[in-house]
Amino acid sequence: MDIILKKTERIDDLQIKGLKIIQDKEGFCFGIDAVLLSNFTSIKNNSKVADLGTGTGIIPIIIAGKSKAKEIIGIEIQEEVANMAKRSVKLNNLQDRVKIINDDLKNIENILEVNTFHVVTSNPPYMHPQGLKNRNDKKAISRHEIMCNLEDVIKAASRLLMHHGKFYMVHRPVRLADIITLSRRYKLEPKVIQFIHPKVGKAPNLMLVQFTKAGKAELKILDPLYVYKEDGDYTDEIKEIYAKEDIGEV
Amino acid sequence: MDIILKKTERIDDLQIKGLKIIQDKEGFCFGIDAVLLSNFTSIKNNSKVADLGTGTGIIPIIIAGKSKAKEIIGIEIQEEVANMAKRSVKLNNLQDRVKIINDDLKNIENILEVNTFHVVTSNPPYMHPQGLKNRNDKKAISRHEIMCNLEDVIKAASRLLMHHGKFYMVHRPVRLADIITLSRRYKLEPKVIQFIHPKVGKAPNLMLVQFTKAGKAELKILDPLYVYKEDGDYTDEIKEIYAKEDIGEV
Repeated sequence: MDIILKKTERIDDLQIKGLKIIQDKEGFCFGIDAVLLSNFTSIKNNSKVADLGTGTGIIPIIIAGKSKAKEIIGIEIQEEVANMAKRSVKLNNLQDRVKIINDDLKNIENILEVNTFHVVTSNPPYMHPQGLKNRNDKKAISRHEIMCNLEDVIKAASRLLMHHGKFYMVHRPVRLADIITLSRRYKLEPKVIQFIHPKVGKAPNLMLVQFTKAGKAELKILDPLYVYKEDGDYTDEIKEIYAKEDIGEV
Repeated sequence: MDIILKKTERIDDLQIKGLKIIQDKEGFCFGIDAVLLSNFTSIKNNSKVADLGTGTGIIPIIIAGKSKAKEIIGIEIQEEVANMAKRSVKLNNLQDRVKIINDDLKNIENILEVNTFHVVTSNPPYMHPQGLKNRNDKKAISRHEIMCNLEDVIKAASRLLMHHGKFYMVHRPVRLADIITLSRRYKLEPKVIQFIHPKVGKAPNLMLVQFTKAGKAELKILDPLYVYKEDGDYTDEIKEIYAKEDIGEV
């Protein structure tokens, strides 16, 4: 396969159906949040899926592996990063189903057809850019609300989804109140939350949220997910999520 | 002491500083939620406190025992229940600091001076009254949103509190999105949430929330509280909360 790697890039094995991903050792590499979010989604056959701020394309690639979605579109504003994602799509021979678009999600109406998506996903930047030294740094853009903020992401997700379409997001619990207020403002009803705790007895440091466009107000909080056992090893639940070779519909 | 008990009433020992409470065996008796909420509050000396929907007066009585609040006012719409609370206040000799008012919290502006309270607490009815057979039943009124709904409680709390005053509420996680949306509508910013799980690994079935009037948007989720151990016994944390003879400032 004629995939060209840049000097600081490497190919990582996702250990899911033989999928691989190109990552920049000096850039932002995917973390447990992207894996948990992908695992949290429930994708029906022939769905149309969009991933907002797709980065290296990790979420579209895992979803392509675990589901029979017809079309998965990743939007990434950073040209270099989008380019890396495009090469990963080719590397996995997923060009027929996965498409990476290098554009700004704030401009979503001009990029994709609104009200037509079954599912939207996003692992957006979590942090406030306040006090940041280098706002052009690739890693900083992936982590901080520089190019888009929480409202931009929620608004774009709402625009893309069809009636009763589902939005899946991973974020930090510190933003829970903002997430709920903003999602309701854009007609996305929070329906399911799963808090991710580093271990038993500790406060959650991540959360998975599923919203339904124009959904009825009724929130279900799932059993918590613990990442580490007391001895520092991954819990069985986490090992299971990582080990799934054939995830199928959740 | 000349406290008269009705036929179905009994006196229960709160095991906190010798405090006692009158409860109606056939009515609504206080549960772990009221105890956890009282324990969750932080009351500065000489504070002015109001408890909305005070029922048997359990929260004002525990707060009187654990703090040096100057004045604690409980509002209860049910005359019989308010009367029971008044007798419990006398039974504990707390008349100087605790006052029970039999009135409707929807009418709060005409009952109490707005914008003057340091702390407001509430353990409101959790459930929708949909499908209820007897809407006049005392227990049903304590449990269901018959005489007031979530918005009425949040609105009344906001009206009573001074700038940066604190509202403490216990509720069910299923209402989390409503609680956040409504509280922000009435300028109460959710600042701290503690989820209460029946046991490790199980979804929370209660939550304690602290709001600050006109507070800055920043939510802290505390370490979870588990009620039962695997063997069905109370956890040490819960035993400790119940055992506190001298709670003092939290």
